[in-house]
Amino acid sequence: MPIHLHQDLDRLAKEILSLGALAEEATNHAIEALIHRRADLAESVLSGDDRIDRREVEIEIECLKMLALHQPVAADLRYIVAILKVNSDLERVGDLAVNVAERALYLANHDPLDVELDFPTMGELVKRMVRDCLDAVVRRDVEVARRVIQDDDKVDEINRAMFDILEATMQADGSTVKRAVHLLSASRHLERIADLATNISEGVIFMVDGEVVRHQPELYE
Amino acid sequence: MPIHLHQDLDRLAKEILSLGALAEEATNHAIEALIHRRADLAESVLSGDDRIDRREVEIEIECLKMLALHQPVAADLRYIVAILKVNSDLERVGDLAVNVAERALYLANHDPLDVELDFPTMGELVKRMVRDCLDAVVRRDVEVARRVIQDDDKVDEINRAMFDILEATMQADGSTVKRAVHLLSASRHLERIADLATNISEGVIFMVDGEVVRHQPELYE
Repeated sequence: MPIHLHQDLDRLAKEILSLGALAEEATNHAIEALIHRRADLAESVLSGDDRIDRREVEIEIECLKMLALHQPVAADLRYIVAILKVNSDLERVGDLAVNVAERALYLANHDPLDVELDFPTMGELVKRMVRDCLDAVVRRDVEVARRVIQDDDKVDEINRAMFDILEATMQADGSTVKRAVHLLSASRHLERIADLATNISEGVIFMVDGEVVRHQPELYE
Repeated sequence: MPIHLHQDLDRLAKEILSLGALAEEATNHAIEALIHRRADLAESVLSGDDRIDRREVEIEIECLKMLALHQPVAADLRYIVAILKVNSDLERVGDLAVNVAERALYLANHDPLDVELDFPTMGELVKRMVRDCLDAVVRRDVEVARRVIQDDDKVDEINRAMFDILEATMQADGSTVKRAVHLLSASRHLERIADLATNISEGVIFMVDGEVVRHQPELYE
């Protein structure tokens, strides 16, 4: 590998990690804001999203420059294209964290609903998936990537259970509807963050093995 | 431009258009299924999604081959990278059409809610946005792309209005909750299809002008 390409790939890895750290922090803060009714943390997620958006644009431009300058092939080409996709997925994670934070802000300013929802477990899983998928990207670690894909099923299950509980709550008492709809949304947005961590992990497997695992769920069931 | 690259770019345009046509058809059928309570149309969206998924993978592999083989620069490089993103966005449009179709299927099998929702206008807008963003991609037409971005505001507004109406419906009558939650989801998924058409249109502007319009909302307000 030419030395300049090698250096540029190293720098790109650092840059995507730093964007990943921002997306991970936004996700963690949004989850904490939701669970602990912390309006201040929710606000910090809202005000931090601009930075994530700017970093995404910068990294995309960087990737295009590298493709044009080094004209990489095989594994290096797959790596840069994978980073382009991870980049776009991380920006979406940031947007979803904003959505969760907006729900958390509403909920923090209203009486809590007296209902048992497993946001703590869901939150731990989603936080771990985001952290793991970034590890998988940087260490090109297929085993970690496959673990993320498995975790996604657990998140889906918790999301479905929350839906049932919240629907029953709304049916029993109309005064809960607005808060329950915000909670439904928060749960769904967390589930979509988990989906994006799964996407990113599938990208890692593609990058390392050239194997396309998207749309082949039977491999992971 | 070398003649082989020229031919390959033409073929790529045809391929992304054919994927776009599948995603557009899925969207249209899901909307019709929702509005006219057509379980048969909903089923056809569900069974058609595999084909969209397979086409996405094929086009991605095609793009990687073109990058490796032709090592394009400048406008051609931006075009291929833009197609990679459009490809991934169209696959997500297909997934969202499946989500809408699943809601439509549930609703078609239950009594209609007696509530005034403007799915026809929302549906027309979303269908037009998907069609227009594909036109914008193939004709590299920045004007059409900008129109799509403007339409997105109208869809957001209808989505918000539906939320208010459905929340009030659930508050007034607990027996409406399940159906109203399905309608909320359908509205939100349509709104996300509109977001993806907007993404694709922003990609066209980047491809043609090299201008990054994402995260610069002031340009379109």
